[in-house]
Amino acid sequence: MKFLAEIDVMPKKEILDPQGKAVTGSMKNLGLAEILNVRIGKHITLEIEAENEAIASAKTEEACKNLLANLIMESYTFKVIPA
Amino acid sequence: MKFLAEIDVMPKKEILDPQGKAVTGSMKNLGLAEILNVRIGKHITLEIEAENEAIASAKTEEACKNLLANLIMESYTFKVIPA
Repeated sequence: MKFLAEIDVMPKKEILDPQGKAVTGSMKNLGLAEILNVRIGKHITLEIEAENEAIASAKTEEACKNLLANLIMESYTFKVIPA
Repeated sequence: MKFLAEIDVMPKKEILDPQGKAVTGSMKNLGLAEILNVRIGKHITLEIEAENEAIASAKTEEACKNLLANLIMESYTFKVIPA
């Protein structure tokens, strides 16, 4: 069976996000001063061939831990759905 | 009122995603050959001060169009929720 995973990898709250800070500053110049506290991370989609959803989730978790996220600076969330 | 927006900015389907391709290749070396077709975009969170949800959505849309996404190569989706 094929599954689709959607993963968000974000800088941890305690970690300064300079890209987000820069974008927050730019919002003012665009006339969007109501927008605050921009934080920028990664959104990753992938396909998994697995027998069931539990295995697909485990594989996604393994990919996040070993490759997609830097656990010192980033945290991740994901959801897996049948494709 | 304060709202929270979650935005996904992804490379369009027709556009080659070299970062995603490289990560897909690395999955094999990690023993995760079941993972295919990795695509990598941005996940952005921000806060908006607005009178109601419709205004908050309009402001988010404006930010996406004018700053956060490159509409030639990327598409975006977002949801706005009360904070």
